[in-house]
Amino acid sequence: MTSGKLRSKPSTIDIHRMIKTKYASCWGLQVKTPTKVNVAKVGAMNWRKLFPTVTTNLLKPMMILDREKKAPKLVIPDLDLRRMVNDDNIFRQNFCIRSYEIGPDRTATVETLMNLFQETNAIHLKTFGFIDEDFSSAEMSEKNITWVMVKMQMIVDRYPTWGDIVQINTWKSAYGKNGGRSNFILCDAKTSEILGRASSFWVMMNRKTRKLSKFPNEIQAKKEKYFVNTPPIVEQDTVTWSKRDATTEDHICKGLLPRWSDLDFNQHVNNVKYIGWILESVPKTILENYEIDNITLEYYRECTKDNVVQSVTSILANHNGEIADDGVVHCQHLLQFEISGGDIMKARTRWRPKYRKSEAARAFVN
Amino acid sequence: MTSGKLRSKPSTIDIHRMIKTKYASCWGLQVKTPTKVNVAKVGAMNWRKLFPTVTTNLLKPMMILDREKKAPKLVIPDLDLRRMVNDDNIFRQNFCIRSYEIGPDRTATVETLMNLFQETNAIHLKTFGFIDEDFSSAEMSEKNITWVMVKMQMIVDRYPTWGDIVQINTWKSAYGKNGGRSNFILCDAKTSEILGRASSFWVMMNRKTRKLSKFPNEIQAKKEKYFVNTPPIVEQDTVTWSKRDATTEDHICKGLLPRWSDLDFNQHVNNVKYIGWILESVPKTILENYEIDNITLEYYRECTKDNVVQSVTSILANHNGEIADDGVVHCQHLLQFEISGGDIMKARTRWRPKYRKSEAARAFVN
Repeated sequence: MTSGKLRSKPSTIDIHRMIKTKYASCWGLQVKTPTKVNVAKVGAMNWRKLFPTVTTNLLKPMMILDREKKAPKLVIPDLDLRRMVNDDNIFRQNFCIRSYEIGPDRTATVETLMNLFQETNAIHLKTFGFIDEDFSSAEMSEKNITWVMVKMQMIVDRYPTWGDIVQINTWKSAYGKNGGRSNFILCDAKTSEILGRASSFWVMMNRKTRKLSKFPNEIQAKKEKYFVNTPPIVEQDTVTWSKRDATTEDHICKGLLPRWSDLDFNQHVNNVKYIGWILESVPKTILENYEIDNITLEYYRECTKDNVVQSVTSILANHNGEIADDGVVHCQHLLQFEISGGDIMKARTRWRPKYRKSEAARAFVN
Repeated sequence: MTSGKLRSKPSTIDIHRMIKTKYASCWGLQVKTPTKVNVAKVGAMNWRKLFPTVTTNLLKPMMILDREKKAPKLVIPDLDLRRMVNDDNIFRQNFCIRSYEIGPDRTATVETLMNLFQETNAIHLKTFGFIDEDFSSAEMSEKNITWVMVKMQMIVDRYPTWGDIVQINTWKSAYGKNGGRSNFILCDAKTSEILGRASSFWVMMNRKTRKLSKFPNEIQAKKEKYFVNTPPIVEQDTVTWSKRDATTEDHICKGLLPRWSDLDFNQHVNNVKYIGWILESVPKTILENYEIDNITLEYYRECTKDNVVQSVTSILANHNGEIADDGVVHCQHLLQFEISGGDIMKARTRWRPKYRKSEAARAFVN
């Protein structure tokens, strides 16, 4: 791979800042915080090759602060279901938003977008040979190792609606020595308008010891071949969760019970379902008048059918004690086991008034 | 349309038997039971045209008792996303089963199949012009009329898994004077193996008066043009729900709360979500060792965010007091408002041991 004339040079800084994010306690893992990353072993991506048929107008908002978003007239065939692009580094998948994937606002829900990212990720990993139909590889199964998502960040500029065909482009980067970052760009498949972007971070865990695991040899080899070193597609949210004080307003919802239909193939509550629990403690007035434009989720522990969960939402006030700053509401969320009090997930959300276009003033890290 | 040499002649008998099904109390509607149906106004379907490219071997199981199912070697292109076939009477749509649509068994869940039927139905109705992007038509909006599903029946021979491409064929028939029946055949898009079939029944309701409504003129005109008269694709389950007695074993789950993420564009709990509640009261041993091969759902009342629901499952014993007859378990289910006790839904399920192929001995009505 060549770096070419990059608008934004990949550097080690972003990777190291990323590593500062503490995932030592995530999912109850007993891990040492990774200290180094071998950046030389992961390639630098040629951004110009990312969308070879796309004009500079489209590439621009992907790399720099975009305050004047335009929707280029690129037509991507509706039936372009899936393919590899950019020297097989980027995986592209189209989806049609289905009627049952939209919510009361008649737009795709946050869960829907998270599901589509998860699906694209899974197909991409399968295409690489990282996983098989059982979401594992032979060596992983033998060593009793599994993938675990530790963090997800997502920014949504515009929610698609029923019948819209969206395109997700994804590629993988390193996350420390033994983790990966999936980068996602969501756009309208017909107009190429960028609708959102996201990053998910995952590590390998030994199912038995619950400790962080090294990549098995076969995965390590594929990592060196397929991973590309790019700055995060979403600026890292490294802010620690505030303690609740006088400038916050708390809302608690107790007694949340996992349903059978929440369980995924791992017999655990699927990580996307946690969003539904977060929303349970968000006040109705926010749900009805605002929509999420930025969400960060940090996963701490798995949740099974037998757990009882409580959801806490704290609305963050600004210095003047007002909850809406420039019309935007900031919240932090906590999911806990109701009996033991152990943290399952922490999350932060930013909400904009519904039907107001995002200011698209959220920079890509450069 | 011509009737051709039908293997099974459509007759008025099935329609009239269908009308005997009482939906007078469904969804709290104040309705008169329909008494007549103008069969002459709905055409007879040429079954041979149903799958014009399919051999007789495939057509056979669609019309007659199939005890020797074969999987014909018909290749349907994966990318055949959607199109009308059979003189525009049948709508065909392909779907790829996504990773988040499979459950702990690693096969598509019942909810997933119901969702896909619902989506195919909605696109078909939209293609006809019965509804627009807002799931309504101009005249329906003006007259404050909405569609309401009153019943759903589904038979599943084999559950697809992640990455499988399934094809759904659907067509519409009359259901009394002012209702419709959607017929669905689910098959493997590559092999044409039939995986399941379903019927859903819907009527029109005035949102304000909650009474059954006549079809508006524009819908009536389309009905005469597009509806085709065929026998039900799934034999009508007209058996009334048994009173629970000594030969039943009851399991109750109380305190089920609708989540925000359960609500659809109508601000009501989506009818597919009810299945999740049904499963909550099904004993774990059944969920772990059996899978649904036949389900009938009758919808009585809408459910909103503020309701508290209880789910009751009664396992039906045979005459010898055994719960599993020839390895098959029969259950009946009841969803009720916990406070008022009003019925929300009644359902009946038949479960076969997991991983045992369906005997496919369930006849199509002929």
